[in-house]
Amino acid sequence: MKNEKPLILISNDDGVSAKGLRVLVETLSGLGEIVVMAPDGPRSGASGSITSELPVRYYKVSEEQDLTVYKCTGTPVDCVKLALFELLPRCPDLVIGGINHGDNSAVNVHYSGTMGVVIEGCLKGVPSIGYSLCDHDADADFNPMLPYVRRIAEHVLANGLPKYTCLNVNVPKTTALKGVRICRQTDASWGNEWARGQHPKGGSYFWLTGKFTNNEPDAEETDRWALEHDYVAITPIQIDMTAYHLIHELKNWDLNV
Amino acid sequence: MKNEKPLILISNDDGVSAKGLRVLVETLSGLGEIVVMAPDGPRSGASGSITSELPVRYYKVSEEQDLTVYKCTGTPVDCVKLALFELLPRCPDLVIGGINHGDNSAVNVHYSGTMGVVIEGCLKGVPSIGYSLCDHDADADFNPMLPYVRRIAEHVLANGLPKYTCLNVNVPKTTALKGVRICRQTDASWGNEWARGQHPKGGSYFWLTGKFTNNEPDAEETDRWALEHDYVAITPIQIDMTAYHLIHELKNWDLNV
Repeated sequence: MKNEKPLILISNDDGVSAKGLRVLVETLSGLGEIVVMAPDGPRSGASGSITSELPVRYYKVSEEQDLTVYKCTGTPVDCVKLALFELLPRCPDLVIGGINHGDNSAVNVHYSGTMGVVIEGCLKGVPSIGYSLCDHDADADFNPMLPYVRRIAEHVLANGLPKYTCLNVNVPKTTALKGVRICRQTDASWGNEWARGQHPKGGSYFWLTGKFTNNEPDAEETDRWALEHDYVAITPIQIDMTAYHLIHELKNWDLNV
Repeated sequence: MKNEKPLILISNDDGVSAKGLRVLVETLSGLGEIVVMAPDGPRSGASGSITSELPVRYYKVSEEQDLTVYKCTGTPVDCVKLALFELLPRCPDLVIGGINHGDNSAVNVHYSGTMGVVIEGCLKGVPSIGYSLCDHDADADFNPMLPYVRRIAEHVLANGLPKYTCLNVNVPKTTALKGVRICRQTDASWGNEWARGQHPKGGSYFWLTGKFTNNEPDAEETDRWALEHDYVAITPIQIDMTAYHLIHELKNWDLNV
């Protein structure tokens, strides 16, 4: 096994044509055999969603030495599941989501299709990393972050990650990155989340938007603090969502009927 | 405030017409003013997804004393966000997802639209509960679980939940429930996840299916163990996904570039 070239599965939620995906593939070139299975169009905000009411299909887009690219009609998580089932000759050594056009720090982890990819890889027992740049521009400049992207991927390929943990890597929009900080998820919230429009035939429609509020802007150990101070924020994520600190209290509740 | 009737927001991922939603509303009758904002059709597996590329709309379905029902074109999480923004006169006292037709225990929490509802309520600081019955049948028999549904809701209305925690309540398909167990999320995995079909014009399509494997079937503290032994499984969930146990180790990594 260890004599084989590493096998790297990549997906995203911005779709197979996104610049962030293209520069990620270029940046990881030489680290192993890369298979891309990405949605055939944008799936921003797809979270961990799966396609249960319809079938999905996939198509080969391109093939060259150490790089094969496929597109899929499903969600980011479908892409990972279908690639593992259908495309890969063995369990990959690394699953990567990204590079996302937009911030997936703090509570955004719950909505992120990029992190959907990463959590799915993690659920399958594969070391997994999500990369996001805090810039929604379709032509965002990913260059400053790319040395970090490669370094972190190399490190995880060499050392792995503890089972059922994965990395959420977010990078601020700056050309003066100060280095890496290991962080926890920031306590933050979205408010005023909808913009109303009037349909020409009557009634309102609503676009999701909103104002992001950092509820602990001075907490230096958080991912938002790191981003706001020009650091690469690495937040380790776990897939066990149990609130262990609540179990004892709940056992004292009288819930008999 | 405390003289007001409690305000309860309900959504689900099986859609506004699902039996599980109807029996939930009936079961909670009298506990307060209920507002339902549910998807206009099935959204199983929607997880925490949000609609970012299209606008969403909502419509009133029915209105009676202490119960108003709306349907929405968006995801389960959209339903919660839009109800909070547009429909409710104040922050609700309780957000409920369900009753889901199907199991949301163990790793299913990551894919569940029902738990998407609950986690969204929790992110907004509202005590939130998800209810699921381990029976996918559209005409499933919810009766055995209903006393527990009401009792748990009453308890949370009276006592709240610690901030940023919520409850994932799963109930086995049995008429002989043994009571409640407080659990942790089971280590489990899905495998062999796709069924292939052949398109009449060529090529394959894939339906998501799969085999669920419990990786720790003898662990009595897990939600799957409780379900397999005819208990109501209550798993407390937290929205901080940080893998705290990994932070120290990661700080020793050399990630300079």
